[in-house]
Amino acid sequence: MSILTLLTDFGTHDEYAGLMKGVILSINPRVTIVDITHRIGRQNVAQAAFTIHSSYRYFPAGSVHLVVVDPGVGTGRALLALETRKHFFIAPDNGTLTLLFDEADITSLIRLTNSDFFLNPVSRTFHGRDIIAPVGAHLTKGVELNKLGSEMDPRDTVRLDNLQARMLKNGKIIGKIIAIDHFGNLISNVDMRQLARYDQADLSNKLKIKIGSHVIHGLSKTYGDVRSNTPLALIGSRGYLEIAANTGNAAQILKARQGDTVRVII
Amino acid sequence: MSILTLLTDFGTHDEYAGLMKGVILSINPRVTIVDITHRIGRQNVAQAAFTIHSSYRYFPAGSVHLVVVDPGVGTGRALLALETRKHFFIAPDNGTLTLLFDEADITSLIRLTNSDFFLNPVSRTFHGRDIIAPVGAHLTKGVELNKLGSEMDPRDTVRLDNLQARMLKNGKIIGKIIAIDHFGNLISNVDMRQLARYDQADLSNKLKIKIGSHVIHGLSKTYGDVRSNTPLALIGSRGYLEIAANTGNAAQILKARQGDTVRVII
Amino acid sequence: MSILTLLTDFGTHDEYAGLMKGVILSINPRVTIVDITHRIGRQNVAQAAFTIHSSYRYFPAGSVHLVVVDPGVGTGRALLALETRKHFFIAPDNGTLTLLFDEADITSLIRLTNSDFFLNPVSRTFHGRDIIAPVGAHLTKGVELNKLGSEMDPRDTVRLDNLQARMLKNGKIIGKIIAIDHFGNLISNVDMRQLARYDQADLSNKLKIKIGSHVIHGLSKTYGDVRSNTPLALIGSRGYLEIAANTGNAAQILKARQGDTVRVII
Repeated sequence: MSILTLLTDFGTHDEYAGLMKGVILSINPRVTIVDITHRIGRQNVAQAAFTIHSSYRYFPAGSVHLVVVDPGVGTGRALLALETRKHFFIAPDNGTLTLLFDEADITSLIRLTNSDFFLNPVSRTFHGRDIIAPVGAHLTKGVELNKLGSEMDPRDTVRLDNLQARMLKNGKIIGKIIAIDHFGNLISNVDMRQLARYDQADLSNKLKIKIGSHVIHGLSKTYGDVRSNTPLALIGSRGYLEIAANTGNAAQILKARQGDTVRVII
Repeated sequence: MSILTLLTDFGTHDEYAGLMKGVILSINPRVTIVDITHRIGRQNVAQAAFTIHSSYRYFPAGSVHLVVVDPGVGTGRALLALETRKHFFIAPDNGTLTLLFDEADITSLIRLTNSDFFLNPVSRTFHGRDIIAPVGAHLTKGVELNKLGSEMDPRDTVRLDNLQARMLKNGKIIGKIIAIDHFGNLISNVDMRQLARYDQADLSNKLKIKIGSHVIHGLSKTYGDVRSNTPLALIGSRGYLEIAANTGNAAQILKARQGDTVRVII
Repeated sequence: MSILTLLTDFGTHDEYAGLMKGVILSINPRVTIVDITHRIGRQNVAQAAFTIHSSYRYFPAGSVHLVVVDPGVGTGRALLALETRKHFFIAPDNGTLTLLFDEADITSLIRLTNSDFFLNPVSRTFHGRDIIAPVGAHLTKGVELNKLGSEMDPRDTVRLDNLQARMLKNGKIIGKIIAIDHFGNLISNVDMRQLARYDQADLSNKLKIKIGSHVIHGLSKTYGDVRSNTPLALIGSRGYLEIAANTGNAAQILKARQGDTVRVII
């Protein structure tokens, strides 16, 4: 009854995710595989870092999460297996797991070196299929992490800087748009916890959110709080500040793009 | 061995469907989850209504179908659980289930109010993950509908008018294009039962189908009945009138769009 | 614990793949279904032939593979069930299975004629749902191939010519681009076995790969071997010659399209 998830930038055109599933089921035919998404921006490690961090907690304890956004495939970069108190993660050592390392409950961290758990031969261009998938499948069968390679100090891993929005001393927050979803909603890296020091009345009335030349006043509770096609800001379902437009497409209305700056002022 | 299906307008870019699956498997790790589609037009409740109605019968008796096309999320709209003789459905009370209510075998209809079966907390913008997914998972475990909330009279639900094509007294049928599929086939809302009073010879020879300025004469049996790239009309695999082009893209050839009018004359 | 895979040109907009899954699970609720891809180019039988051939070996022995790229649906073309030493395949008799027939281990080949294993009624436009899905599901339950129809001589099936790249007497290889993947990598039909007679030093130094007016010198080992956005050639993870651009999109950089000619000279 074990669960294994996939989070990649493979897109949905090709057979790449399907082949990983074939490899996994060849090792453990009883595993349930779930696609979190295969539409992380190509080689966008920061977006992958946010998405796995806000997603994994919705899966059962004991789940194995494979994250494959891997521009360095075939070069010297390491592959990591991380065990936390409740979940397992496998990913390249390229910053994908940054936000997980920032949480406290790491049990074990291994650099994958034991090729007994790899496909044979291993290609130079598809470690997702040849290393990450088979190692993940073995984890779902109960193989212990320390069998997979050598222990590693979390401080020696690659981290992404500036993932979280910056809080200035004057209380301003400078963030950016991490992802634009299917509905045109703009997902920022401004964490709701960065707004926790303000009371609800101030958030609703005094907060100003600036994106490009547009200013949104106050946080809404839900999309329907404003007229159709009117931009609004709210704490989205991931726990981050999100800019949306009721029944409309905020990205189009605001001509916003991934990476754009978001300023929060109170 | 229970089956749960997902039908949404989430698209395939984001992790939204994946998170629903995580929530479901956290409650019932033995359920088999099937994506019917996540590419219903954004907030297109009518298309969702047609698609669930023509799809559910291909799944085993006892399946639980979650339909999440929900422009009113976070507002006062109700969420419904519907039990028919063979299937279960959960959806917002926005007309999604209109065509199912028109069928006779409703066993039970509940407005979801019992938050014991919801995630805690419930976000204001993602009831698919926080209410519909966990309630659906509990249904697959055998929880009875009447535990989920208060009974509701089907007559008190929101219905969509004019879903089915209109039959005029002179025998003309006025329909529209409900969906354009991946191949450019135009799926109309003209039900094959609306053509049942004509005999086969008349359907093949005398029927005229008008779309824009284009007229198609007679119903074909299959795509290969006409030359390549020639538009034809047939009863599609959903049981509705469909306009296609053999090995070609009817939507491009006819410059047709979702919502366009289709006239059937005999 | 049986595995069934789907490989189609249905795209991901519509419910077509979902309905096939419903039909399959109605017959065998214990099967695990894997999408290899639904994004084969519309009616591109050659691409389907390459993709199933390079994919199936990653799935467990005993897997049932359904391939539905079927421009001739509803016409007289046959539907085939093929058993090899380790795998089962169901596909239209349109060349999809050409590369599998070229391999030696065919155990049985059947033309599907026994409608006991079909849905009833069978539509004229969706044999994937009405014939291929239910027959595949019965195979996963152990139904023997010879129950499904009449035996057929593999020599009587439709084959695609010129799938593999041509080797000229002077050692030149003339191939073409079979697929362009999500990253813009160009997948050719030049099989690594066609390069096996050259030694590694010649492949790295003397080989020239021409596409359009562009010439690439030598085979690389992995994407990171060249500077960003520089085109390179390598043996891709499918075992075919692939033209890529490190962290860039080779299709855009080279203005290449599916079907373009690739010349290999040593």
